[in-house]
Amino acid sequence: MPSYTAPIRDMQFVLHEVLDISGQDIPGYADLDADFTAAILEEAGKLSSGVLAPLNLSGDREGCRLDNGVVRTPEGFKAAFDQIRDGGWTAIDVAEEFGGQGLPYLMHTAANEPMVSANMALNMYQGLTHGAYTAINIHGTDDQKSRWLPKLGSCEWTGTMNLTEPHCGTDLGLMRTKAVPQEDGSYRISGQKIFISAGEHDMAENIVHLVLAKIPGGPEGIKGVSLFIVPKFLVNENGSLGARNGVACGNLEEKMGIHGNATCVMNYDEAEGYLLGEAHKGMRAMFTMMNEARLGVGLQGWAQSEAAYQNALAYAKDRLQGRAVTGAKNPEGAADPLIVHPDIRRSLMDQKSFNEAARAFTYWGASLIDRSHKTGDAEAEATISLLTPIIKGFLTDKGFEMCVQAQQVFGGHGYIEEWGMSQFVRDARIAMIYEGANGVQALDLVGRKLAAQGGRPMMTLIEEIKVFCKQNAGDEAFARDFIEPLKSASKDMQQAAMFFMQSGMKDPDAALSGSTDFMHLMGHVCLGWTWARMARAAQAGLAAGTGDRAFYETKLSTGRYYMARQLPATKMHLARIESGAAPVMALEADAF
Amino acid sequence: MPSYTAPIRDMQFVLHEVLDISGQDIPGYADLDADFTAAILEEAGKLSSGVLAPLNLSGDREGCRLDNGVVRTPEGFKAAFDQIRDGGWTAIDVAEEFGGQGLPYLMHTAANEPMVSANMALNMYQGLTHGAYTAINIHGTDDQKSRWLPKLGSCEWTGTMNLTEPHCGTDLGLMRTKAVPQEDGSYRISGQKIFISAGEHDMAENIVHLVLAKIPGGPEGIKGVSLFIVPKFLVNENGSLGARNGVACGNLEEKMGIHGNATCVMNYDEAEGYLLGEAHKGMRAMFTMMNEARLGVGLQGWAQSEAAYQNALAYAKDRLQGRAVTGAKNPEGAADPLIVHPDIRRSLMDQKSFNEAARAFTYWGASLIDRSHKTGDAEAEATISLLTPIIKGFLTDKGFEMCVQAQQVFGGHGYIEEWGMSQFVRDARIAMIYEGANGVQALDLVGRKLAAQGGRPMMTLIEEIKVFCKQNAGDEAFARDFIEPLKSASKDMQQAAMFFMQSGMKDPDAALSGSTDFMHLMGHVCLGWTWARMARAAQAGLAAGTGDRAFYETKLSTGRYYMARQLPATKMHLARIESGAAPVMALEADAF
Repeated sequence: MPSYTAPIRDMQFVLHEVLDISGQDIPGYADLDADFTAAILEEAGKLSSGVLAPLNLSGDREGCRLDNGVVRTPEGFKAAFDQIRDGGWTAIDVAEEFGGQGLPYLMHTAANEPMVSANMALNMYQGLTHGAYTAINIHGTDDQKSRWLPKLGSCEWTGTMNLTEPHCGTDLGLMRTKAVPQEDGSYRISGQKIFISAGEHDMAENIVHLVLAKIPGGPEGIKGVSLFIVPKFLVNENGSLGARNGVACGNLEEKMGIHGNATCVMNYDEAEGYLLGEAHKGMRAMFTMMNEARLGVGLQGWAQSEAAYQNALAYAKDRLQGRAVTGAKNPEGAADPLIVHPDIRRSLMDQKSFNEAARAFTYWGASLIDRSHKTGDAEAEATISLLTPIIKGFLTDKGFEMCVQAQQVFGGHGYIEEWGMSQFVRDARIAMIYEGANGVQALDLVGRKLAAQGGRPMMTLIEEIKVFCKQNAGDEAFARDFIEPLKSASKDMQQAAMFFMQSGMKDPDAALSGSTDFMHLMGHVCLGWTWARMARAAQAGLAAGTGDRAFYETKLSTGRYYMARQLPATKMHLARIESGAAPVMALEADAF
Repeated sequence: MPSYTAPIRDMQFVLHEVLDISGQDIPGYADLDADFTAAILEEAGKLSSGVLAPLNLSGDREGCRLDNGVVRTPEGFKAAFDQIRDGGWTAIDVAEEFGGQGLPYLMHTAANEPMVSANMALNMYQGLTHGAYTAINIHGTDDQKSRWLPKLGSCEWTGTMNLTEPHCGTDLGLMRTKAVPQEDGSYRISGQKIFISAGEHDMAENIVHLVLAKIPGGPEGIKGVSLFIVPKFLVNENGSLGARNGVACGNLEEKMGIHGNATCVMNYDEAEGYLLGEAHKGMRAMFTMMNEARLGVGLQGWAQSEAAYQNALAYAKDRLQGRAVTGAKNPEGAADPLIVHPDIRRSLMDQKSFNEAARAFTYWGASLIDRSHKTGDAEAEATISLLTPIIKGFLTDKGFEMCVQAQQVFGGHGYIEEWGMSQFVRDARIAMIYEGANGVQALDLVGRKLAAQGGRPMMTLIEEIKVFCKQNAGDEAFARDFIEPLKSASKDMQQAAMFFMQSGMKDPDAALSGSTDFMHLMGHVCLGWTWARMARAAQAGLAAGTGDRAFYETKLSTGRYYMARQLPATKMHLARIESGAAPVMALEADAF
């Protein structure tokens, strides 16, 4: 069975040595000193290793069952969820007025990492609830907030997001679910929603569905979509639970992975619902929480890769097979451990160098969300909006790829379910699909975000990288190993952006044909830059002589690997982008 | 449920217009005219679409069950296997003296393609039998041949390969299974073998295991391994079945995919076995059939991708979602079909351009095997030995990647098992692992094949590409679209090979750190060259004015796509290779 240990030292390095969070002028950050965050992360790590990880494989095997409309989660999930709830882990960044700890979103993100690594399917129940909490917190009336938020914050009640219908996922303007206004101000919701994660289960007293639906007579298409709160059980004035509402789980999907999470077909039959935010502004309401939701999914991609990597590493050190090409490294043994073989190391280094940069990049993204929300900093908001498709799309594409590599280290055993490596691959796969499939992320990046505000956020990012390169060009070895590759990759990114601006005006297909390549090109630049920043922090650590030399040296080596072996991908993506629309669009649909 | 149709026109194009098989001076090829091969492929296609494909999803769901030592295959498998057997599909290239049709291996390969696409798990039962047939045909005594080959050729009895043990897969020198010689010349085999595909099942009267084991007192390690024939039921002098032998299935593995194929733990307890070939030369015996076995696995990779692509294409044409960025293409409908979107097309073109080149490259490889076996042509043997790691390693890596892309086209539905796209991904995954994990393929390529015969086969290949480029440089558009990218990619390949020669001498780690990248670099050159050859054939078809213009134009467009969008990968791989061993080997094992 796979095991998992939270990489606390790596997490702390990012928080304090790379991002210097307690030095940042964001409300609440000053309290986040190293001892404080270590205490939180260590507790989250213990819960993850000791309680959540041991249920991951069994949860996958057992899956969820639908009995007469009631969904049974896998053995042990309910007790573990109680522990998550009782430990206050669902309420880290929930406002104090609603019973939470009121810490920054960054701390929610960091404490969430080990729980996602340990058991993604189980953690989704609180992840979706967090989304519902956020939506109501932003768009709800005071009455709605006081009614729903304390219970959602504590996860006594859990939340869901209901967007997809059988005939529409990305294109929600085609939606058919209806919300008919009632005299008392409520609505009657009718329709079918699919792919509803945690739509029904046995771990909470009540389930609060956030449902997109159309009010008859409203605008056509996407502009006529509104957002509603639809509880499983109605809530009485005094807060006690009332009658069962007209919503039920009609079916459970059999999926490739995340078997421990109930993916439901939800049938709404004149269910009582309450408008959240303005009528017909449902999509706008969804957008306001999109950066957070997508960051959470991006984290899933690399958090699975981190867990898979830990197990691949252990196997590579343990499994004896073959001899090192440069001579036996374990001459007493029957063979050398796998880790002596260059191609195994290449694979482990791919995984390690990706995971560590992905973590730092995501944490930085979470801090931008805090800055935006807590200080109203428009530039932080613009930057995180630009980077969200990278965090969601690139990090999940790569996270999945790294899970596949980790599985490959196990040879034939990787294909056998009891070793658990298949599950990491199967679970990580969904992160590329939900919360906007990665092709849609690429479209969002190239079609909207690049051009947003006349391209200013993108120019700001390029400028920041330039300034960083200038400031750090003095050290010759550092310039060679980090700055030169970063400059070169960043130039490729600028050239690609230029290509889009010039050709995209004449032919939008030319830009969109290169959208996925651009998302990956920019992703590598972002992680390369992140590595350069981490390397700087490692050098500072070495210079300070804190006695952790091996840790910092390893960071530098891992960073050098990423720069030397991953950044060359940017030229390939640029060449593909510059080939334009012709190769992609040449064929008529019938000619395929 | 997914569907599948054999792409007969594409297959025929490769056989006759690209490879001109009936014009090749290989014994048996003169008979392979277009009508003859079309008749075979159409029948194979019908069987595949009508009988095998409909059992693919149900076979995956149901899987195999072990009841008291007896393995039950999924509902319908036995009847379908009878149809495969009765139609003579298992014996296409079986010698006439053993009841087969005596056709070239190429025809076995081409007729096998649709069966693998339609139902990989089911087809493995005959695939492994084919391997056992080949091994006995090459290494068996006349008596062994007449005893085993007619039944294996017809698949009345099926075959297996027993190599792996719990503690050793790649490194078979660690093997513990013992073969103790008996006075009558037979051996008693004892030990445990794992991951034995089709080790036990209910679809044949007898199962003939080929088992690697060590004769006590023989040489240490890999040089002391011998190959044995160990039947499930002993065979009497008159050919009738005798007593049950001391071999039994102890367990079935629960796997990520190929659920319809029984992957067995096989326990040998003083089982009667017969030496096949020379004592202690078991590995050499395995090697003589390795090119074929690996080509068969390479085919699995892209045959799954072909099936996945067909379904992704159908979905992309059918599913209405969003509007084309250049204006509605289906203004009457609620939305445009997915295929209007550039990123969906990019994905479909990735898949299509890979599948078609992979097919042509594999068929060409099969013709080299025929040339080598039927004419003793040493150069053909050297070339196919060089290309085998590409066919096995590169085509399965890419085939899997393309299945993932095909799944992605379906959005959330791709993650739901009933749509069948997950199964293509899960089934294709094994092809990267078995028959030598792809890292081992890369090691074989860089560590052995590149340097074989002083590098002559590699130099011959490079020279052939050069000659092709020279001969086809006259047509300006063709030179721009095909020859220039091919030349550039081929130069990258030569530069990488040169790097290995120069640095590998001093530091073998430097070469092996780039082994997987080299396999991919060379794979792209090979498929790029294949596309250039296909494009030439398409031009010839256009010039001949046979009225199939649309087909040939589509081939040219698809080829241009591969050259423009896939070949730029070679520069990335070269840069990684040239970064050498330092980034890969920098860390001590403990520093990971």
